[in-house]
Amino acid sequence: MQTGDTELIRAINRFHVLDTIRRFEPVSRAAIGKRTHLSRVTVSSLIATLLQEGLIHEESDETTNSGTRGRPTNLLGLNPNAAYVVGAKLSMHQVFLIVTNLRADPLARLSLPLHPHQLVPDAIVALLDEGVRSVVALAGLKLGQIAGLGIGLPGFIDSKAGISHWSPILAPEPKPVALADMVRRRLGLAVTIENDANLLTLAERWFGECQENDNFVVVMMEAGIGMGLFLDGELYRGQHGMGTEFGHSKIDRHGPRCRCGQYGCIEAFTADYAILREAEKIIRTPAAHEGADDTAEAETRVATVVRLAREGNVALRQIFATAGEILGLGIANLINIIDPAKIVISGSGTRAVDLIEPALRAAVAANTLAVLQNRCEIIFHDQGDEVWARGAASLVLQALYRKPWTPASGAEIAIMPGTTARHQKGRP
Amino acid sequence: MQTGDTELIRAINRFHVLDTIRRFEPVSRAAIGKRTHLSRVTVSSLIATLLQEGLIHEESDETTNSGTRGRPTNLLGLNPNAAYVVGAKLSMHQVFLIVTNLRADPLARLSLPLHPHQLVPDAIVALLDEGVRSVVALAGLKLGQIAGLGIGLPGFIDSKAGISHWSPILAPEPKPVALADMVRRRLGLAVTIENDANLLTLAERWFGECQENDNFVVVMMEAGIGMGLFLDGELYRGQHGMGTEFGHSKIDRHGPRCRCGQYGCIEAFTADYAILREAEKIIRTPAAHEGADDTAEAETRVATVVRLAREGNVALRQIFATAGEILGLGIANLINIIDPAKIVISGSGTRAVDLIEPALRAAVAANTLAVLQNRCEIIFHDQGDEVWARGAASLVLQALYRKPWTPASGAEIAIMPGTTARHQKGRP
Repeated sequence: MQTGDTELIRAINRFHVLDTIRRFEPVSRAAIGKRTHLSRVTVSSLIATLLQEGLIHEESDETTNSGTRGRPTNLLGLNPNAAYVVGAKLSMHQVFLIVTNLRADPLARLSLPLHPHQLVPDAIVALLDEGVRSVVALAGLKLGQIAGLGIGLPGFIDSKAGISHWSPILAPEPKPVALADMVRRRLGLAVTIENDANLLTLAERWFGECQENDNFVVVMMEAGIGMGLFLDGELYRGQHGMGTEFGHSKIDRHGPRCRCGQYGCIEAFTADYAILREAEKIIRTPAAHEGADDTAEAETRVATVVRLAREGNVALRQIFATAGEILGLGIANLINIIDPAKIVISGSGTRAVDLIEPALRAAVAANTLAVLQNRCEIIFHDQGDEVWARGAASLVLQALYRKPWTPASGAEIAIMPGTTARHQKGRP
Repeated sequence: MQTGDTELIRAINRFHVLDTIRRFEPVSRAAIGKRTHLSRVTVSSLIATLLQEGLIHEESDETTNSGTRGRPTNLLGLNPNAAYVVGAKLSMHQVFLIVTNLRADPLARLSLPLHPHQLVPDAIVALLDEGVRSVVALAGLKLGQIAGLGIGLPGFIDSKAGISHWSPILAPEPKPVALADMVRRRLGLAVTIENDANLLTLAERWFGECQENDNFVVVMMEAGIGMGLFLDGELYRGQHGMGTEFGHSKIDRHGPRCRCGQYGCIEAFTADYAILREAEKIIRTPAAHEGADDTAEAETRVATVVRLAREGNVALRQIFATAGEILGLGIANLINIIDPAKIVISGSGTRAVDLIEPALRAAVAANTLAVLQNRCEIIFHDQGDEVWARGAASLVLQALYRKPWTPASGAEIAIMPGTTARHQKGRP
């Protein structure tokens, strides 16, 4: 039980000072005192500690003091190089790795192909081991300088326990896989695993379009349709860390069979495989297999369908319009149920935004309750691969800014004063 | 900004002591110290204040000390009569009022008929004024002894602002109605208004089936289908306090028209008016009007349909089976998206539970993703009218137990030490 004592007070005050610096940098000690209502002594003491830990840095403000007397005012800001982290995104056909700092500046990146026979835990862990070491070297860093590794992957991920309950990347493993532990043992790094849509959601919150929003939804259009929920200022994970399966919510009682085995799922109309299934009825390409090894091939073939639709094939255009309508219907349901301030549609599926957007917006308007009309902003925002750097940096920031009065989050990555100092020394 | 100071520490410690007493009463000072890890001095000081405020009471424990020496151990418990509140539920055809204490014991109740011409703000406020005064007198109390009034009503209610953006009860008023303020001015009481499904959700949390659940959903089957979401330990209200419109989420692209004007809503299959619309095709009763004045009549007619279905009318039974299937499909979507620990189905619509439950459970099983199967408990729990006493008491408890480190909630009702003492004196 977290009862009130002087240690907690200091943690609370530290949070507010650090948060003020992050939000208003560069900022003076006086301004911090004013915003936090803390005494000069308290602010000075906390800042001394934060400087010593290397989390913030100080620079004299030449502008303000030119021509005035007295000591120059020193401005404080977050030290972007207080921590380096590696972000990894596991997809069906590649492992993408990126090294970044606290500001999510990309320092080095690496993409390793993933072959179907590697879609088992041991091979994935070996590939991550190799990939992380390589990308860290590419960034001119040593493994000891990395504060943590954040891994995003599709599936049912218990981030707190570091366990993947099910992921297409770790198939055919039917049992839960303690992925975070396995990677940690190989690399000796703090490792956090997270559902890829959740990681994308954190990236939107810390670096993207939702920095000011406490209630928003990220819909991720990749091979499947993922979702992240950010509610009341926190990432929402559900009771078992496994909800937010937007792609398999049903919007058509008499709809087609989905690859999950059920009927009328949003994915059964909008996922790559569904687009191709319908396209084959029109352009007679060879039948697509729906297996894991075909993801890359499917992407290429969808790109062809997109091109032909853009060139004017009316029947193909209708496939995307239907996908947009179904997605819009699902989004209207989210608005009716969750009442978010914003919905961000992201992921490689947004490449066909011009083909799906008109039908999507029409369906949202037709199916959102009158009282909720036009209250939720819907935007398309694909950040490309760098989003995984932002996601990894977000995990660190989330650990760093953990509110002292809330229960511990699942984030493994943490910045220890000692290691931070070492990082700084290690960096030329 | 809530920075750490000694006042905050005391508030945090007070919360933990009070919460420990509520959860483990009757409980000794020593046990409280053990559970909270607070010093004997701190615990004693806080308990002295709570006793003085009348929020807790003390009784000597005869059992434990029989035969032992030393001072008798005094056990502490919450004082159920520390506050009296009035709960009001506004429905289309009646205003139901109930007086209760902190333990939600019903002390008096009153039901006033509501006529169609009274469905305007001024008439509702006048009726509430009259009703509250009457029910308080029935309980043998004076208005000055009432800590607050909690009003539940259907519609889009901004509880924090005390405003009804839209409610069938306040129709045809198209503008927002500052209902809480209007009632407060008439009665001189602290007034909180709340969407009725949300009030029911709070009642489940504080007194019902979800006291141990941090993530649960309440589906309320009344004239329409309402919903309350309790997520991550808090009532979820959405960005504009207006979401959770489960009844108008769409589960059938080609479904029938709903009275909201859109198509394929859950209500278009499951609400009273939808049941009657289908039943009329079979049993040729006079066509039902869907206007506000027909709610009571509709309830009677639905009761007839339920009876005939129970007696074996196969076609009528199928109407309820379809309603159950649609509701199950919607509930499966909630499980897929929100991953709650429990879903409670409540309200007068559960009177036909035997007719809808088998199809409902089958549809949930058929449409919940494999990984989420059997992880969410679904129960039928109708609390009857007393639930509104529990809801009103919950509003007080919620204000009383507001965690000191979270932002202020919308609850208006608060217990002031001074007034509490007066209440106790006023009570014989």
